[in-house]
Amino acid sequence: MVKQDRAIRTRQTILAAAAKVFEERGYQAATITEILATAGVTKGALYFHFQSKEHLAQGVLAEQDQRLSVPARTCKVQEIVDTVALHAYRLRTDPMVRAGVRLSLDQQATDLDRSGPFRRWSGVIRSFLDKAQAQGELLPHVVTAETADVLVGSFAGVQAMSQIISCYQDLGHRTSELLRHLLPNVVLSSVLTTVDLSADRGAVVFAEVTGLPAEVELVAAPG
Amino acid sequence: MVKQDRAIRTRQTILAAAAKVFEERGYQAATITEILATAGVTKGALYFHFQSKEHLAQGVLAEQDQRLSVPARTCKVQEIVDTVALHAYRLRTDPMVRAGVRLSLDQQATDLDRSGPFRRWSGVIRSFLDKAQAQGELLPHVVTAETADVLVGSFAGVQAMSQIISCYQDLGHRTSELLRHLLPNVVLSSVLTTVDLSADRGAVVFAEVTGLPAEVELVAAPG
Repeated sequence: MVKQDRAIRTRQTILAAAAKVFEERGYQAATITEILATAGVTKGALYFHFQSKEHLAQGVLAEQDQRLSVPARTCKVQEIVDTVALHAYRLRTDPMVRAGVRLSLDQQATDLDRSGPFRRWSGVIRSFLDKAQAQGELLPHVVTAETADVLVGSFAGVQAMSQIISCYQDLGHRTSELLRHLLPNVVLSSVLTTVDLSADRGAVVFAEVTGLPAEVELVAAPG
Repeated sequence: MVKQDRAIRTRQTILAAAAKVFEERGYQAATITEILATAGVTKGALYFHFQSKEHLAQGVLAEQDQRLSVPARTCKVQEIVDTVALHAYRLRTDPMVRAGVRLSLDQQATDLDRSGPFRRWSGVIRSFLDKAQAQGELLPHVVTAETADVLVGSFAGVQAMSQIISCYQDLGHRTSELLRHLLPNVVLSSVLTTVDLSADRGAVVFAEVTGLPAEVELVAAPG
């Protein structure tokens, strides 16, 4: 067990180093040599866990999936909002999540399959929407696969715009505005009035999930 | 006048070469030497028009603004839809527009101010929304600056997702879905029923603006 614990820790050390190097250099310019030096592990240890640069990148991309869980809510739409808001919060505060999102949008990573995070996110949101639909929370015309794709795609752009304009400082605000624009055409208004869409929702959920104090966001008005 | 024409043509040749090199290499790895070789112009000609790599990139970024005009419509919401749809169409078919959008999302271009396209696009959409509001086309709660930012940010992500998943083949469809999700909470339903939101709207507007035949999109269903 102790040996296994150590292997898990080594794997996390390598992934953290890979995340850092991918974020600084981009996928194309990043090298295993630099990741090795940053991680401070042996070549053997790295290749035991990851066979190639692409495997390292897929490892970083997959890490954001490990951080998706939010507490179950009676209202499934609130679970969707909490999932998106928590992801936005982590994007601002967790280097691993940030590196994963940046990799998935790295246009020079031509030999890396970047569709995985989009498809996985879309699948997660769709299964929430299916549950919400089964509970009668959604408007009758909603096609959950279409709405999931719109939510995932639009969030990817809103986070990029927030990064470029404010280094993520306004991400909670922009995420809240996106949901306020999208959800009234997806969710029954009687349900939506009970949902917390506020800009600090991600920080609230983070504190609830982790028991840690959350960083406050400096909300900026749009340009 | 002939001399001026030639200068304009040379400038366009250089910008097209810069667009190609930036798209292939990314901003950071692109060099003026490669842009020179691709353009087939003299160093003197290039530096006459652009003093640095950053000036070349800003030139490429600005080119998409030159292609924003759509025919005036009685319904200003239709003008917004047409602007977004035409941009989506050009993104799929015009290398200069694609290079500009990719540059604006190039995360390794750390020393390039990439906020310009987002701010300019948001300003264009906001001014359309202000006109639509003055004409009574919008719902009473709409704050045009917020809605413009949501539209621009979300479109940036939807196009990235379309590029990654289908090489832009489903962009018209995804753009239409995004607008179908966003606009019912922005536009009066009596106005929205008169607006053409179909997936081939961009191709229709392109043909109208240029008099050229438009490429048909292969519409793909979401994952």
